[in-house]
Amino acid sequence: MKLSDIALFLGGKLYGDPGVEITGVSGIEDAGPADITYLLKPSEKLLDLAEGSAAACIIVKDAFLTGLKKNQIAVDDPQLAFIRLLEHFHKAGRPPAGISDLAFVSESAEIDGQAVVMPFVFIGEGARIGAGSLLYPGVFVGAGSKIGRDCTLHPNVTVREGVAIGDRVSIHAGSVIGADGFGYIMRSGRHIKIPQVGGVVIEDDVEIGANTTIDRATTGNTVIGRGTKIDNLVQIAHNVKIGAGCIVVAQAGVAGSSTLGNYVIVAGQAGVADHVHIEDGSVIGAGSGVLPNTRLSKGAYAGAPAMPHKQWLKAMSVTARLPEMNKTMQDLEKRLYELERRLLSEQ
Amino acid sequence: MKLSDIALFLGGKLYGDPGVEITGVSGIEDAGPADITYLLKPSEKLLDLAEGSAAACIIVKDAFLTGLKKNQIAVDDPQLAFIRLLEHFHKAGRPPAGISDLAFVSESAEIDGQAVVMPFVFIGEGARIGAGSLLYPGVFVGAGSKIGRDCTLHPNVTVREGVAIGDRVSIHAGSVIGADGFGYIMRSGRHIKIPQVGGVVIEDDVEIGANTTIDRATTGNTVIGRGTKIDNLVQIAHNVKIGAGCIVVAQAGVAGSSTLGNYVIVAGQAGVADHVHIEDGSVIGAGSGVLPNTRLSKGAYAGAPAMPHKQWLKAMSVTARLPEMNKTMQDLEKRLYELERRLLSEQ
Amino acid sequence: MKLSDIALFLGGKLYGDPGVEITGVSGIEDAGPADITYLLKPSEKLLDLAEGSAAACIIVKDAFLTGLKKNQIAVDDPQLAFIRLLEHFHKAGRPPAGISDLAFVSESAEIDGQAVVMPFVFIGEGARIGAGSLLYPGVFVGAGSKIGRDCTLHPNVTVREGVAIGDRVSIHAGSVIGADGFGYIMRSGRHIKIPQVGGVVIEDDVEIGANTTIDRATTGNTVIGRGTKIDNLVQIAHNVKIGAGCIVVAQAGVAGSSTLGNYVIVAGQAGVADHVHIEDGSVIGAGSGVLPNTRLSKGAYAGAPAMPHKQWLKAMSVTARLPEMNKTMQDLEKRLYELERRLLSEQ
Repeated sequence: MKLSDIALFLGGKLYGDPGVEITGVSGIEDAGPADITYLLKPSEKLLDLAEGSAAACIIVKDAFLTGLKKNQIAVDDPQLAFIRLLEHFHKAGRPPAGISDLAFVSESAEIDGQAVVMPFVFIGEGARIGAGSLLYPGVFVGAGSKIGRDCTLHPNVTVREGVAIGDRVSIHAGSVIGADGFGYIMRSGRHIKIPQVGGVVIEDDVEIGANTTIDRATTGNTVIGRGTKIDNLVQIAHNVKIGAGCIVVAQAGVAGSSTLGNYVIVAGQAGVADHVHIEDGSVIGAGSGVLPNTRLSKGAYAGAPAMPHKQWLKAMSVTARLPEMNKTMQDLEKRLYELERRLLSEQ
Repeated sequence: MKLSDIALFLGGKLYGDPGVEITGVSGIEDAGPADITYLLKPSEKLLDLAEGSAAACIIVKDAFLTGLKKNQIAVDDPQLAFIRLLEHFHKAGRPPAGISDLAFVSESAEIDGQAVVMPFVFIGEGARIGAGSLLYPGVFVGAGSKIGRDCTLHPNVTVREGVAIGDRVSIHAGSVIGADGFGYIMRSGRHIKIPQVGGVVIEDDVEIGANTTIDRATTGNTVIGRGTKIDNLVQIAHNVKIGAGCIVVAQAGVAGSSTLGNYVIVAGQAGVADHVHIEDGSVIGAGSGVLPNTRLSKGAYAGAPAMPHKQWLKAMSVTARLPEMNKTMQDLEKRLYELERRLLSEQ
Repeated sequence: MKLSDIALFLGGKLYGDPGVEITGVSGIEDAGPADITYLLKPSEKLLDLAEGSAAACIIVKDAFLTGLKKNQIAVDDPQLAFIRLLEHFHKAGRPPAGISDLAFVSESAEIDGQAVVMPFVFIGEGARIGAGSLLYPGVFVGAGSKIGRDCTLHPNVTVREGVAIGDRVSIHAGSVIGADGFGYIMRSGRHIKIPQVGGVVIEDDVEIGANTTIDRATTGNTVIGRGTKIDNLVQIAHNVKIGAGCIVVAQAGVAGSSTLGNYVIVAGQAGVADHVHIEDGSVIGAGSGVLPNTRLSKGAYAGAPAMPHKQWLKAMSVTARLPEMNKTMQDLEKRLYELERRLLSEQ
């Protein structure tokens, strides 16, 4: 694709040679001599980075980078332009619509004619798969579950019975939606299982990473709100309700019956215990732990147990100096004792 | 099911209209107008909750709730009654016994006539599957492994070779039993693998969550004791021995050769390092970390490194006040210096 | 195998009865009366352990254990000898080379004649599988991916498109290589996905545990260096580069674009945030957390946030005594106040 065509495609202004041929899109450090890349902002600090890149062209914000001897395209939003180019250059090859002879589809399941069902997929009784949805090998869809339109279920994903998935949902390989919640009562020294008969609702535009687990509710539904993005190896327990536009990063866990508002961020390896409520727009820091039955008002939190981020920063700065503090205190104690001794001897 | 029949089924006493038709069982907040629900204890505090529920009937303890204008059934153990009703209303549909034409069963494997082997299941040489056991699509059972009676292996579960699983064991989707333990020795700058030739023994009535991993022993067996319940995304390393009736919550990990007694609870995201022994009935708090080669006597532990729970509570209460403590100490130092200065000038 | 033959096989010196028949190899505590076992070092302390073992023979270092009434074989490196015996006694049965009729292999894929492709394996367009490699049931290999020679992909492993795997690589059951990295930009209240069009490179002699996830790069490659060993349930994010000979223990996570040198150890449940660099030979302690954008010089680190291990040990020893420190300080404050009061009254 010629630079002039790329500038047109992006609605940007080209500074440089319109005839240069671009064959790839790449990050600024990985880029080769026929690649296009981007800089978030034109900045003198980044000039060296830009100059050092092998890329044939750099997408920059508005005003082009003066002092840079490279082709540039100036746009309003370089990051978004980069995403559009990545999508343009990497349109995924897609198998033709239809059901593989090597798949197993129950008689009462309804598969849209525009869906793709690959080999070794199993679809249970009464399940429904919407138009444009793509089920990779090894996917299991349980009885009565519904997958909306334009969803992608990557290899070896398990969607148990009674799960409702909206449109444009991606679930990465190995994830399990709708396994039993973890609930028992103890009677006479035995753990008796509380049957987990609820379901899971995944709303539109959700993305779920690889090997993540989202349990079904005891009764009612576990809910993942519209546009929420969940990373790999995350645990979402039974009856959790996550709002819209949230971000849950890898290896984080949310325990039973906790609720997250909208646009909440739970960072990597954080743990939210059970029966917690977290208000809209809050941020739970990486590795932190929110205690059970707490209600967090809007804010940033860190530490285990989690506290407001500012308080945690202060506590951490002191923690590192604890041994020193301890010495100071022992010193104070000695000096105080000395004073007391003198005063007593004077009397 | 009529309320009178439910009272009879539960052996409880009905206060209300025997002819009311119940179609579902649900938690008190999710319940609809044809549902039955329960309250753990009759309590004046819960009266509003009970009155506010849409449920047609509430199961309560012994004496009915006075002041509540709703149908009630009084029983000795409302929670157990609720579980029995959940089971009664949600008898899972079950595929007929037999081996799918789309499964692969090795010639020397023995599959009981009352077992269910669904499509895309692979069963290795000499493996045995007991009566009433149900293997969902994508399950792999390795050579010589034995699955007892009435087990359920959910989709995409992997049971490697040489694993012995008892009766009434449930393993949720995506879990891996018997992967190689993680053991190497370093020689001349290379990690040389220690062959992991032991097995895994899962005793009766164990339940294992989704995407959990239980490694085979180097030699001997990794053991999960009778009635122990393990949640999702848990790691159990090689040669670990877990006693009976334990609870291991999501994302917790137990490292190599550690042993847990009976009825030990390891809460979510906790880490037990290698060669640890934890005595019967102990509780390891969420997110805590038990150091290697330690021996914990019966008790509750928290923090990383783990300490007795009471000590941790105290340490945590002080930690939050550390910055304040630091200021106080600086103030003390100033005041002490001032006193010393005065006393010296007096001399 | 007779003891005399084992001594010959190991190049060791036998003290004892050459005619004893050995049928198994086991750890010293699990060993039965026809087993051989080993002791790392001849030590008086271990004499009781050795004497108490049921084993028929013990492999010891150089000089045999005096005072031990058991057959012994003295070798230079008992642990390595033990590994060689484990391998000798447990040569894994291996299915014959060839492609199962129940597998799906795309027309343009190239499968070496000496590879094993078991039932329910799916191999995409243009993928290549090298000689001696073994793909267990449920394995998915995406379009254009390359698996080298003598690799083992255990059941239900997913290798997405555009992944390059070297020789002698083992990937345990349920792991996912090449799922999309977790990257979004927020525009008008929506998370817009950054296409993840890069790949993953797994170099020779790498071993990857069960249910681990290694994400593809945004652009460029996520790289796992030669001889690195990764345990179960580990998360390796997009664009991470791990050097040679590293060890990453169970449930640890490394976030986006971080780089590890050679021979780095990341212990269990540790978290390395994004854009971190860790130098060769460093050790990141269990459960610790390395903050984003940090650069760790060679050393041992612990705690969250991670600090040098020595500093952490000191801080931890003080932390446990915090409540006591707090009391001491309150006491100092009282005594100081008393002195001040006196001095003021004297004036």
